[in-house]
Amino acid sequence: MPDPSLLETFPTPAEEPFVIEHVNEEFTSLCPNTGHPDFGRVVLRYCPGETCVELKSLKLYYQSFRNEGIFYEAVTNRIRDDLAELLKPQWLEVITEWKGRGGISSRIIARLGEEPGKS
Amino acid sequence: MPDPSLLETFPTPAEEPFVIEHVNEEFTSLCPNTGHPDFGRVVLRYCPGETCVELKSLKLYYQSFRNEGIFYEAVTNRIRDDLAELLKPQWLEVITEWKGRGGISSRIIARLGEEPGKS
Amino acid sequence: MPDPSLLETFPTPAEEPFVIEHVNEEFTSLCPNTGHPDFGRVVLRYCPGETCVELKSLKLYYQSFRNEGIFYEAVTNRIRDDLAELLKPQWLEVITEWKGRGGISSRIIARLGEEPGKS
Amino acid sequence: MPDPSLLETFPTPAEEPFVIEHVNEEFTSLCPNTGHPDFGRVVLRYCPGETCVELKSLKLYYQSFRNEGIFYEAVTNRIRDDLAELLKPQWLEVITEWKGRGGISSRIIARLGEEPGKS
Amino acid sequence: MPDPSLLETFPTPAEEPFVIEHVNEEFTSLCPNTGHPDFGRVVLRYCPGETCVELKSLKLYYQSFRNEGIFYEAVTNRIRDDLAELLKPQWLEVITEWKGRGGISSRIIARLGEEPGKS
Amino acid sequence: MPDPSLLETFPTPAEEPFVIEHVNEEFTSLCPNTGHPDFGRVVLRYCPGETCVELKSLKLYYQSFRNEGIFYEAVTNRIRDDLAELLKPQWLEVITEWKGRGGISSRIIARLGEEPGKS
Amino acid sequence: MPDPSLLETFPTPAEEPFVIEHVNEEFTSLCPNTGHPDFGRVVLRYCPGETCVELKSLKLYYQSFRNEGIFYEAVTNRIRDDLAELLKPQWLEVITEWKGRGGISSRIIARLGEEPGKS
Amino acid sequence: MPDPSLLETFPTPAEEPFVIEHVNEEFTSLCPNTGHPDFGRVVLRYCPGETCVELKSLKLYYQSFRNEGIFYEAVTNRIRDDLAELLKPQWLEVITEWKGRGGISSRIIARLGEEPGKS
Amino acid sequence: MPDPSLLETFPTPAEEPFVIEHVNEEFTSLCPNTGHPDFGRVVLRYCPGETCVELKSLKLYYQSFRNEGIFYEAVTNRIRDDLAELLKPQWLEVITEWKGRGGISSRIIARLGEEPGKS
Amino acid sequence: MPDPSLLETFPTPAEEPFVIEHVNEEFTSLCPNTGHPDFGRVVLRYCPGETCVELKSLKLYYQSFRNEGIFYEAVTNRIRDDLAELLKPQWLEVITEWKGRGGISSRIIARLGEEPGKS
Repeated sequence: MPDPSLLETFPTPAEEPFVIEHVNEEFTSLCPNTGHPDFGRVVLRYCPGETCVELKSLKLYYQSFRNEGIFYEAVTNRIRDDLAELLKPQWLEVITEWKGRGGISSRIIARLGEEPGKS
Repeated sequence: MPDPSLLETFPTPAEEPFVIEHVNEEFTSLCPNTGHPDFGRVVLRYCPGETCVELKSLKLYYQSFRNEGIFYEAVTNRIRDDLAELLKPQWLEVITEWKGRGGISSRIIARLGEEPGKS
Repeated sequence: MPDPSLLETFPTPAEEPFVIEHVNEEFTSLCPNTGHPDFGRVVLRYCPGETCVELKSLKLYYQSFRNEGIFYEAVTNRIRDDLAELLKPQWLEVITEWKGRGGISSRIIARLGEEPGKS
Repeated sequence: MPDPSLLETFPTPAEEPFVIEHVNEEFTSLCPNTGHPDFGRVVLRYCPGETCVELKSLKLYYQSFRNEGIFYEAVTNRIRDDLAELLKPQWLEVITEWKGRGGISSRIIARLGEEPGKS
Repeated sequence: MPDPSLLETFPTPAEEPFVIEHVNEEFTSLCPNTGHPDFGRVVLRYCPGETCVELKSLKLYYQSFRNEGIFYEAVTNRIRDDLAELLKPQWLEVITEWKGRGGISSRIIARLGEEPGKS
Repeated sequence: MPDPSLLETFPTPAEEPFVIEHVNEEFTSLCPNTGHPDFGRVVLRYCPGETCVELKSLKLYYQSFRNEGIFYEAVTNRIRDDLAELLKPQWLEVITEWKGRGGISSRIIARLGEEPGKS
Repeated sequence: MPDPSLLETFPTPAEEPFVIEHVNEEFTSLCPNTGHPDFGRVVLRYCPGETCVELKSLKLYYQSFRNEGIFYEAVTNRIRDDLAELLKPQWLEVITEWKGRGGISSRIIARLGEEPGKS
Repeated sequence: MPDPSLLETFPTPAEEPFVIEHVNEEFTSLCPNTGHPDFGRVVLRYCPGETCVELKSLKLYYQSFRNEGIFYEAVTNRIRDDLAELLKPQWLEVITEWKGRGGISSRIIARLGEEPGKS
Repeated sequence: MPDPSLLETFPTPAEEPFVIEHVNEEFTSLCPNTGHPDFGRVVLRYCPGETCVELKSLKLYYQSFRNEGIFYEAVTNRIRDDLAELLKPQWLEVITEWKGRGGISSRIIARLGEEPGKS
Repeated sequence: MPDPSLLETFPTPAEEPFVIEHVNEEFTSLCPNTGHPDFGRVVLRYCPGETCVELKSLKLYYQSFRNEGIFYEAVTNRIRDDLAELLKPQWLEVITEWKGRGGISSRIIARLGEEPGKS
């Protein structure tokens, strides 16, 4: 069951704004309709406020979706909301990319605020 | 025969705007001049209004073009119009990419509204 | 319906043995269980006897599978048998490669005789 | 000899503006200095006005350069001018890409108007 | 829990020997030491005897490893043994490929019999 | 018109046998049925006898096919025969690879003798 | 131990502003928690003021992190700060890219000023 | 020794502004410190004024750096200055890309004016 | 200092022979002449006897080369010898691949016995 | 001028036979006919006898061809002969790969003895 209490933070180690990106190639959850597993990739990008997310805790948080039946769109917005509440970032972007089902692959993009100048 | 009545929707699961992209690698229809099959890839990208398109129904809708004689340009605008009417999205983009005929490959891009900041 | 009568031949234009390979990136048939379309790639390789298969007729023959419900294994053996009977080749190989269904992609390989030294 | 009279059109099948892209991987002409063949790729992108270029006629038009001695820059501007006159598009872009000669490859880009938001 | 009773077969549709290959890009199990998920790819290749494995049942069989704590080597040999017993094939090969842990990725190869001439 | 008299040679500069490979990415001829241009790639590999083919003359020889109507199979065997007669090599291989027509790409392989140990 | 005193400069050889980019594919430091090595790639991009960084001295500076226990975020900001102080550039960007740990790869981006028009 | 007198021009063959790009994959000069050869790639992009640079003369100009001891930054600015003086272009960009030395590869970008809308 | 005492084993979990391959993308040691770091990739492939090498212990063993001055050839033979002594395998292959120094990259291959049929 | 006296050796550090491969991506010489530079890649593979070639001396030896007018075939056989005389290897292979001239790229392969089982 998705569990944001697994997430831990550490103080942002710089005063100038900068960008952090974590890419998880190994995300899996279940389709709530069929119970079949979904496999995807989760990209998290953000400009930290006063805290950053600790990497190992982020991995455990992602693993907590393993046996949850949940739609692509809900996964994406759930991760955005959990991390936004935890980190209070200057901006944040979550992109989930899902392998094909029946010949159709999908990508969902949720943001908080707008990145100043893409990178 | 292209059949928009196959399309189904579900309520958008978030209040913040976000982006959904579905890529179908396996689209086929017929050339109205020669009757030969055309093969292509259809990219649908949109920012949902109050509803999202259900993925399996989208697949069946695409399959309904299988034995239809229809030009590249008409396929693209037809998909845009059917989905725009169904979803009332904030913006929407349909890109069709077609394998080569006689050494020429093609791509058609139809939009509804303008995406705020590309992704 | 698969129709080998569409296939035409022309006399082999050389006396020394040589190898011919035709790769069709745009094969489609139907799943006999679900009726959903299958998409694949067909590789034909052979060393001609007295005749070669004419390229446009080969394309029309492949297109005749478009609305046939037929398993991967049966497609592959059917093509091998039809071409073997037509061409009486010194050897012949048919490889079909199928895009994934439920995360599993497949490849079927049927041969007639053994190629002397791979290329 | 480049022959724009080969080009044919059909009425634009939509009222909303959209983008059409045709990529010809198999363009060849002759170097006017040496007589040696040049090989390239021609990308045509445009937003149609009231007519679109018919695909087969475009192919024949490109083939009419086959034995013409003509510089890269002149090919590119010639195609832009012929298609601009034929189509009266809202905007149009011609990009020619040429394989290396003496270790140098080239690309020429000619436009008519400015595309509103790249794709 | 790995469950070979999920596997189903159908009669081999040809008398000449041929090769079948199924590639599952979405295999996951658990590390028996740490409980962390492992992600991999399973390639099954065989020359059928009198029966072939049914594709959907193969997918369900693979999914039955999802929450099993089991080593790479044991997964690979287990799949080989289950399928060898089920299919009585002329030869069979199972290759598992595992994403990196601590910078090391792995591949395990188990065979039954020897393939006559690689493909 | 294919013209082997364009080919020139130079004495083989070593006594030990070795292998020479020349790859021409820019071959074009005409389809004898439709008159449309064919585009391909020609790989020549051989172990020289007493003479080697001079590179610039080889290029001019290939260019002499530019406006010839000739089938794939005939091009390949013609090149093999012309070079075999010119060079009296220990072995020689000609592979032509042709871009797709109607979704089918082709490759023709003609040899003279057998290469001792592939490279 | 990271040692900025290793860095050397030379006078900027042009008066017009221009951009310099150095990509180090072979960066390694240690994880301060586990002591295990981290491996990454460091991209440095800047528009020089009156001095440029000398390439060999930059390499030695990067090597001085080899046995330092330091987090990704701290490495990135440390390099930005050391080079900003040394070079007084018009703008500067440091991007570090880190191979995956537990299936998650990371990228950190720190900037000084804003690049006028991306390249 | 770099020799701009090798450069020749021809009159720009169109009145509408357009873009010309020449990519030289085979640039070499010497390191002024060590005497070892440097190998790189030079991209020249410009919008012509009244004249364009002739391609073969450009190649000879680049070859004149072969045995010159010269830094990356100086090569790049030298080429920009020589071509700017020769061509009086509307804008011009020179990008040099250098293979790695000690694990660090480099890229230098010099411009004259600003390109209106990247391509 | 390379330390084979870090290596641990577990009993081979199958009686039929099979193949195990571990690829370490993150190997680093020092050049004994210059003290500069070398970066490489180590592929280990073997057919186990009665024991297999434990993966985490293998990683620690590789890390023990981090600050050792040692040549490419010696690293490769050292790993072969240490693992051969530990595992008493039926056959074993060690391939090290090293990033370029001065434009030259290297690969060293050491074997114990001969693999029956490559994979 | 090619200078084998630049080559140095060191004693082979193992008694079991093994394979060494050095790939030089940055080879350049001159065409003896036109004086234009040729650019290529040189692969050296051998099984050492009692000595191995020292890597830095190999680089200097390759650099000594920089301003030599010499044909592809002669370069390849020259390198084979110089290294065979120096190293007295159990077997040795030299492959040179040359970027295209007039659309034709080339590869020359010279061997001494036969490698026992390719890798």
